[in-house]
Amino acid sequence: MIAVVGPGDADPAECAQAREIGRLLAERGCTVLTGGLGGVMDAAAEGAASVNGTAIGLLPGTDPGEAGPHHTDVVPTGLGEGRNALLVRAAEAVIAVGGSWGTLSEIALAMRTGTRVVLLGGWRVLDESGTELALPRAATPAEAVGYVLS
Amino acid sequence: MIAVVGPGDADPAECAQAREIGRLLAERGCTVLTGGLGGVMDAAAEGAASVNGTAIGLLPGTDPGEAGPHHTDVVPTGLGEGRNALLVRAAEAVIAVGGSWGTLSEIALAMRTGTRVVLLGGWRVLDESGTELALPRAATPAEAVGYVLS
Amino acid sequence: MIAVVGPGDADPAECAQAREIGRLLAERGCTVLTGGLGGVMDAAAEGAASVNGTAIGLLPGTDPGEAGPHHTDVVPTGLGEGRNALLVRAAEAVIAVGGSWGTLSEIALAMRTGTRVVLLGGWRVLDESGTELALPRAATPAEAVGYVLS
Amino acid sequence: MIAVVGPGDADPAECAQAREIGRLLAERGCTVLTGGLGGVMDAAAEGAASVNGTAIGLLPGTDPGEAGPHHTDVVPTGLGEGRNALLVRAAEAVIAVGGSWGTLSEIALAMRTGTRVVLLGGWRVLDESGTELALPRAATPAEAVGYVLS
Repeated sequence: MIAVVGPGDADPAECAQAREIGRLLAERGCTVLTGGLGGVMDAAAEGAASVNGTAIGLLPGTDPGEAGPHHTDVVPTGLGEGRNALLVRAAEAVIAVGGSWGTLSEIALAMRTGTRVVLLGGWRVLDESGTELALPRAATPAEAVGYVLS
Repeated sequence: MIAVVGPGDADPAECAQAREIGRLLAERGCTVLTGGLGGVMDAAAEGAASVNGTAIGLLPGTDPGEAGPHHTDVVPTGLGEGRNALLVRAAEAVIAVGGSWGTLSEIALAMRTGTRVVLLGGWRVLDESGTELALPRAATPAEAVGYVLS
Repeated sequence: MIAVVGPGDADPAECAQAREIGRLLAERGCTVLTGGLGGVMDAAAEGAASVNGTAIGLLPGTDPGEAGPHHTDVVPTGLGEGRNALLVRAAEAVIAVGGSWGTLSEIALAMRTGTRVVLLGGWRVLDESGTELALPRAATPAEAVGYVLS
Repeated sequence: MIAVVGPGDADPAECAQAREIGRLLAERGCTVLTGGLGGVMDAAAEGAASVNGTAIGLLPGTDPGEAGPHHTDVVPTGLGEGRNALLVRAAEAVIAVGGSWGTLSEIALAMRTGTRVVLLGGWRVLDESGTELALPRAATPAEAVGYVLS
């Protein structure tokens, strides 16, 4: 089970990457786990569904109707942004596409807990001295998928 | 998404009922949601899987290896018994087979939150005056499934 | 830290018992933990506050304004009924006054997880054979407090 | 209720700042909420306790013995890093001292949910284009406390 995380208001290029990641993961037999909403989340689900894979969306709210339409299963957690921690905990690895505060919280939780994580694009983090903190990055969807499954 | 809950150390008759419930739910297009472990939980998953349905197990711990083997997907929540509340919240209805303290907590949470619930066997609850509290009960798996889908 | 649980729409006798329990716990140096709302919850907080004790309310929602007014501290968890599991997990022991579905869920979770629990009044539970399941019971607030602190 | 967050392995200067923040908050009648462990968390609790204030620690684990010794109350949540989301949700505002992945997850969750947050030192975040994302920053403990209470 691999989480694909990213902004709900992603641009078309990010969605295309997420779709390819979802497809590649499903082709390798992985279940795709997302935050259940639109943008990167639903695009990853769409990619998985396109090859008859499974995409489970962990929604922040309690209304299954909020889910992006391509998820094959939806768990309305009612945990609010607490579902980000659940998502990171439940996944064996995390692929982040693009940047947002919610996405950054998931990356930070993965770094904190030692869950394998890789970024495709997205934000950068500098420490107090201005030194960039090392985050694993991939240049392509295939490279990201290869990294988390290696 | 319908939750099937019950003891992990269920007897063979309870497991047979859970298997039939899982199968009937999957045949009607429902996803089966369970607490992810053995006994009633895995039997419901087995029933769903027997007709190529989906059974998602919400595990209390963080180790996916604890899951009953028939679940098609496993979410290791790390919430401990807090996953009981998540299970009840995420499900549109709950079918309880047999009795245990964990099962009773799920029935009580469903009654508290107004989630539709039906019992097949299981425990009974009396109020202070000794009056039995009304809980919807079914005599057969088909009746339980019919009730939650009605 | 001892949880005092019970219905939000408790009767005056139950509230009087909860107040005495809160006071006795605070006098012995315990922090009182409740579900943060009214009825038994706020009465226990009132008892603790009456002797300058601490009463922390774990609210189901996110609005601190929902809290019973006698709590000295309020944690709006936003977990819905999931806060019941948090309450039982956080407490070293649970005293239940009176009966309701929410209260029963907390008793069942405590029994499930092995947290020490004692009931003052409240509901009764029978297994499939009609045999009453043993739950520790106290006749007075002092007896309940003595039991959980023993 | 104001959360003070920061690394458990903070340096002496960060701890001194956290102590002063805890003291200032308690002097103004606020309850200090922390992640319950050491470093910045326990220093903030120490500051609050030094003026007879209240400092509640929301621990990630279930063992109250893990708590930093200056907390006046401890809630062992058992939620793992999910307690970070609970902490941000429960607080009216968040003051972050210093940087760590856990701290960054809390800042990101606060930014995501619109909870008022201010940083004293700590990390910086750049978006894809290399532009620094605006985070409210304070130069001194007094300025941070003034900001969140304004």
